[in-house]
Amino acid sequence: MGSLLTVSLDAMGGDHGLPVTVPAAIAALADHPNLALILVGDQDMIRQELENHKYPNSDRMQVQHASQVVEMDDKPAQAMRFKKDSSMRIAINLVKEGSADACVSAGNTGALMATARFVLKMLPGIDRPAICGILPTMPGFCHMLDMGANVDSTADNLFEFAVMGSVLASAVNNIESPSVGLLNIGEEEIKGNEIIKQAAQMLSESQLNYVGFVEGDGIYEGKANVIVCDGFNGNIALKASEGVAKMFSFKIKQAFTKNIFTKIAALIAKPVLNNFRKSLDPRRYNGASLLGLQGIAIKSHGGADVLAFKTAIKQAVIEIENRVPEKISEQLEALLVNPRDDS
Amino acid sequence: MGSLLTVSLDAMGGDHGLPVTVPAAIAALADHPNLALILVGDQDMIRQELENHKYPNSDRMQVQHASQVVEMDDKPAQAMRFKKDSSMRIAINLVKEGSADACVSAGNTGALMATARFVLKMLPGIDRPAICGILPTMPGFCHMLDMGANVDSTADNLFEFAVMGSVLASAVNNIESPSVGLLNIGEEEIKGNEIIKQAAQMLSESQLNYVGFVEGDGIYEGKANVIVCDGFNGNIALKASEGVAKMFSFKIKQAFTKNIFTKIAALIAKPVLNNFRKSLDPRRYNGASLLGLQGIAIKSHGGADVLAFKTAIKQAVIEIENRVPEKISEQLEALLVNPRDDS
Repeated sequence: MGSLLTVSLDAMGGDHGLPVTVPAAIAALADHPNLALILVGDQDMIRQELENHKYPNSDRMQVQHASQVVEMDDKPAQAMRFKKDSSMRIAINLVKEGSADACVSAGNTGALMATARFVLKMLPGIDRPAICGILPTMPGFCHMLDMGANVDSTADNLFEFAVMGSVLASAVNNIESPSVGLLNIGEEEIKGNEIIKQAAQMLSESQLNYVGFVEGDGIYEGKANVIVCDGFNGNIALKASEGVAKMFSFKIKQAFTKNIFTKIAALIAKPVLNNFRKSLDPRRYNGASLLGLQGIAIKSHGGADVLAFKTAIKQAVIEIENRVPEKISEQLEALLVNPRDDS
Repeated sequence: MGSLLTVSLDAMGGDHGLPVTVPAAIAALADHPNLALILVGDQDMIRQELENHKYPNSDRMQVQHASQVVEMDDKPAQAMRFKKDSSMRIAINLVKEGSADACVSAGNTGALMATARFVLKMLPGIDRPAICGILPTMPGFCHMLDMGANVDSTADNLFEFAVMGSVLASAVNNIESPSVGLLNIGEEEIKGNEIIKQAAQMLSESQLNYVGFVEGDGIYEGKANVIVCDGFNGNIALKASEGVAKMFSFKIKQAFTKNIFTKIAALIAKPVLNNFRKSLDPRRYNGASLLGLQGIAIKSHGGADVLAFKTAIKQAVIEIENRVPEKISEQLEALLVNPRDDS
């Protein structure tokens, strides 16, 4: 493949499957001249979909057959045991074999996490993988992890998450020393969680740019480039945020469709509201990184549309170009060698 | 006082103190003809503030002197030990003595919780108090607890929160059997938290109208009248939600002030946007209930303005009228006597 970057796609995954993954793949190839893709799934259906889009044969768009599909409600253990020829599994295998530099799937999160962990293996020194997503903030955006790979995390886990998130933010955003905050409840009078306190101690003694506790609202104020939390709280914060965002959109729509006068106002305000919506469009932040693995795996939102899935592919490209797993290893080693080097 | 309902106010509490609490008190008396208030704090300053507002002497507005003030950064234990003549403490004492039917404070949450618990005592059968707040949802609003009184909660605690929240929602909103959901991360493939699973088991076997797990976004979709969670998750969810709401407002403002055209659009859209803002105005939801105590105590947001503090006073009135603590006791007794009565 020369100097092409290769990404394998679980073409069957997600709520929509091929009608989303195939056009997103076509669009991604147009965006990234140095990209090659391997579409993994039912080869006849994939070829049919490519034909539907009148996509000509290209060396940069390969098809790899897989006879099975991991369903959204398959248990991770079942998917791993009984679906060894699934599009998800084969897409991950291609990364393991070195045929692909990264894989992207919009499929079942739990199955993807378990399979990626089993096939690619953890990086030495990392105990648990984490899901790291991107969130919009007032000044820009931030990385948050873990978003749900783990329910219970130790202080060591949180520390590792901080290292991984810091590397990702640094590599992806070109920030030399990304600020790292620990998600916590801010009110001092409330007895803090012991695990978080211990993690805070470890972080403040490390060479990471640790900025202290960040409360839920601090995420969106841009208090840190990287927000570290356990998967339970990360998921609660993320979903609650999505819920509020949806409610806001709902109430705005309600306000603007109330009567003939508000509808006229809506027409006039439309371009402004569209710009506003665009700046917070979740599709522009799609593609969570499964960090801590010996390889790059990106989880797209299950309900992703073409634009969103293309964003997830872009995230894979960025992580390949920035050698994220290697950099995590290097950083971890450096931190463990010099845990208190204050020079 | 005849048939008047009496509420004691920590007049010195909150970020703003008297300039907020006194006019809010005046406005609340105008709103509720059956209400009497006791303003607790520095009597000279209170009388001065009443004079500033040209408020005539009235039997319904008493002043009770307190020589100390609990500061926002006082530790709960310190406040309890060294500030026995604080406006907060006296306001709570008045409830204990029966001179007031409820108290309201915008002061230090931890100190208020600890003092209220110490002075008023827990209801028999309730292990821990909980802070229960009101959140707007797409169809209306819901009650969420605990919002931060406890960091770690057992399954028994969560069950008690469910009982208390259910009673509050029922009494306050006149819903016969409020739906109760447990906040959880929804994805089945992730190993659920054992405490939550156990609480779910207890709730599904109880006579409460338990509707199952609710994810973060389900809060705002109105999936349940009462959302039960531990204080850590509740606080994270609440603050993250507030953060998103602020970011939305910020980005809308940004979009509408970009240039002369967007500013014109803003002028036209203003009444609509104001209506929208009003429907989500946090001041309309101010006043969290400290549940589980032998008495009614309401926590106002520290940064509350006059309208917000008046809403908190109204919440106290509603809880007095609905005998919330007594009903919690009754409900708890009924549930413990007939834990599995499916008739």
